[in-house]
Amino acid sequence: RINGDRLWDSLMEMAKIGPGIAGGNNRQTLTDEDSEGRHLFRRWCEEAGLTMGVDEIGNMFARREGTDPDALPVYVGSHLDTQPTGGKYDGVLGVLGGLEIIRSLNDLGIKTRHPIVVTNWTNEEGTRFAPAMLASGVFAGKHDLQWAYDRVDAKGKRFGDELERIGWKGKEPVGDRKMHAFFELHIEQGPILEAEGKDIGVVTHGQGLRWIECTVTGKESHTGSTPMHMRKNAGRGLALVTELVHEIAMKNQPNAVGAIGHVDVYPNSRNIIPGKVVFTVDMRTHLLDKLNAMVAEFMERAPKLCEDIGTEFSCEIVGQFDPPAFDEGCVKAVRDAAERLGYSHMDIVSGAGHDACWINDVYPTAMVMCPCVDGLSHNEAEEISKDWATAGTDVLFHAAVETAGI
Amino acid sequence: RINGDRLWDSLMEMAKIGPGIAGGNNRQTLTDEDSEGRHLFRRWCEEAGLTMGVDEIGNMFARREGTDPDALPVYVGSHLDTQPTGGKYDGVLGVLGGLEIIRSLNDLGIKTRHPIVVTNWTNEEGTRFAPAMLASGVFAGKHDLQWAYDRVDAKGKRFGDELERIGWKGKEPVGDRKMHAFFELHIEQGPILEAEGKDIGVVTHGQGLRWIECTVTGKESHTGSTPMHMRKNAGRGLALVTELVHEIAMKNQPNAVGAIGHVDVYPNSRNIIPGKVVFTVDMRTHLLDKLNAMVAEFMERAPKLCEDIGTEFSCEIVGQFDPPAFDEGCVKAVRDAAERLGYSHMDIVSGAGHDACWINDVYPTAMVMCPCVDGLSHNEAEEISKDWATAGTDVLFHAAVETAGI
Ligand SMILES: NC(=O)NCCC(=O)O
Ligand SMILES: NC(=O)NCCC(=O)O
Repeated sequence: RINGDRLWDSLMEMAKIGPGIAGGNNRQTLTDEDSEGRHLFRRWCEEAGLTMGVDEIGNMFARREGTDPDALPVYVGSHLDTQPTGGKYDGVLGVLGGLEIIRSLNDLGIKTRHPIVVTNWTNEEGTRFAPAMLASGVFAGKHDLQWAYDRVDAKGKRFGDELERIGWKGKEPVGDRKMHAFFELHIEQGPILEAEGKDIGVVTHGQGLRWIECTVTGKESHTGSTPMHMRKNAGRGLALVTELVHEIAMKNQPNAVGAIGHVDVYPNSRNIIPGKVVFTVDMRTHLLDKLNAMVAEFMERAPKLCEDIGTEFSCEIVGQFDPPAFDEGCVKAVRDAAERLGYSHMDIVSGAGHDACWINDVYPTAMVMCPCVDGLSHNEAEEISKDWATAGTDVLFHAAVETAGI
Repeated sequence: RINGDRLWDSLMEMAKIGPGIAGGNNRQTLTDEDSEGRHLFRRWCEEAGLTMGVDEIGNMFARREGTDPDALPVYVGSHLDTQPTGGKYDGVLGVLGGLEIIRSLNDLGIKTRHPIVVTNWTNEEGTRFAPAMLASGVFAGKHDLQWAYDRVDAKGKRFGDELERIGWKGKEPVGDRKMHAFFELHIEQGPILEAEGKDIGVVTHGQGLRWIECTVTGKESHTGSTPMHMRKNAGRGLALVTELVHEIAMKNQPNAVGAIGHVDVYPNSRNIIPGKVVFTVDMRTHLLDKLNAMVAEFMERAPKLCEDIGTEFSCEIVGQFDPPAFDEGCVKAVRDAAERLGYSHMDIVSGAGHDACWINDVYPTAMVMCPCVDGLSHNEAEEISKDWATAGTDVLFHAAVETAGI
């Protein structure tokens, strides 16, 4: 069993870096706070005797040697970056849970046959630079490195420049490492485990995702002196498309979701009719056909809704992944570990995207989930109990060590 | 007749200060650019032999003495501040047209009985600091000076602090001046004069306005892992209220308008369901009863729409004025001037709010309007012809000088 108190202390220590305004965290990717969090993680890894590697996209790999020089490592980990108004556990639990495994192996004096590597993937959240899971995507060959460097944030800053600025652009080519297996521990970010009273979610599948960045173009003009029939109000385009996304998600129940989280209105003045609105639609479900049908319906109806009110609609896919099915062997290792340790568990589908979804495309991968209070995540009030964190890390420990061999 | 070329040159010279990104201007109130524009205007006034007074809210008053020491001045003017993506004429024509009257009087060696004062009112636009026409409102006793100082912009900066920072807080108590009459020349900002082929609009009335700042509160949570039935999506509140405002305006046709120009979504992340949206509704019509009925319907229906989707609605009126009816004597002076000069003219209602609307409550006031291309304003592409500017300023000249006496 791992040391739950030590794990919890580390979680609380990391949460001091990039504090939010309501008890959570704002440690967005490639900010000074991200860099500070990485320094703390590196120090902890070095104190635990690990060797740190950093690749050209800032992914961190802290390695504990195995006894067999020919065996590929078992990787564990997640991400340390957060949403602008994020919680203390989303991503962080998976990284520090990985570190806790190492500390526990050290305490117990256990040597594994395969090396174990604890990983922090860069820019999992995708808020500052779309898409999400950017660096694990480059690692898995889904995106080109140069393309990733050229992503820009809302202020026009380039991903590549910001990575250099914070000093975490390494020399190791991205994706050079080979994995025996990858395990990611993560909070559920949804309400199912808590509602079902289970300690552990054995993640068998994930939802696929499409992020569609839309622009509605109208005509900036005076709110007072422009007659109603002469208006081209881009804000109405946003309104109609918001409801369209909701309608499409609702008619694809169960297990489909859709919403718009990001909206920029131009020029955003009380007495100017919006001339342009830019926003991103997020649609997900775990069945590929259904996901494609949802997007097709959206693409057909959104332009018409906007044209009918005299505005123009255009869009671009800025993030996408198909529904993943995790590796059966790895999933079984997780389920067996939960069983062996006596934790209540159930199979579940991940509602969120994770680095594990990309890595699963190239190496055997599975995920361990633990509950979170009220299913709340991407909110500073995100909360978990120390018992849940401990159970999840125990299962990660057993699944990884079982796979790494003793 | 005034000198149209000189007027036009001054308009183009002023437009160099705070250039926009698309040919217009961004010279928002109490910015460095606003200060620079004020310095240029002061220099021009001094070159024309005027004496400049500045009051405690930054209103500028450039005085040309009359022959009768007991006669109250005739005021002319408008505002030099612009929208963030504003045009070169909205407000500016009224100030520089006023200056052109003085220059023409000087050229012609005419002395008026009443003094003439050219005015630049602070913060007419209301974009950076709501409400619009803030400083003329304080002058007319509609707002308290301290309350005006305490207005904050989106970055949390206080109006009073910004006024001091740019160096335009004068010593003269606000509203101390007495007026014989006030005339404001302004572009129409709507399509009627151009469509009717008229040079001059004789403004008899204006629309009343209500600015209602609304907050819809939902719950921030993950766009992927929060089931549809557990969502409290504040973005849907915005969508429903956007369409409600449109519906209310449409069913009060003709001569009623409504839109939402300003929207802030929190936390504005692609994968977070909006937990809060703040936006400002702008509703107007020229009949007070109708305006009150529109607002009453909005206040009744908006909270219900938001409650039905699990969100909360609250609101506050952040700007309001009732429909003004301008002074009959002043309106007649404008109409007679247009007639005498041989300009085609028609009576119209102002769609926008103007400083003249507040001053009209305390002193005899009227407005002169000239057309603008396609009725477009609050857009960098706002355009007028030199002939229109000249006609409007000629009428302002005759109406003001007639009222000031020779
Ligand atoms: N786990 C998580 O929140 N990842 C961000 C990508 C997504 O929106 O699902
Ligand atoms: N003239 C003008 O655009 N004034 C700003 C106040 C308003 O929105 O009507």
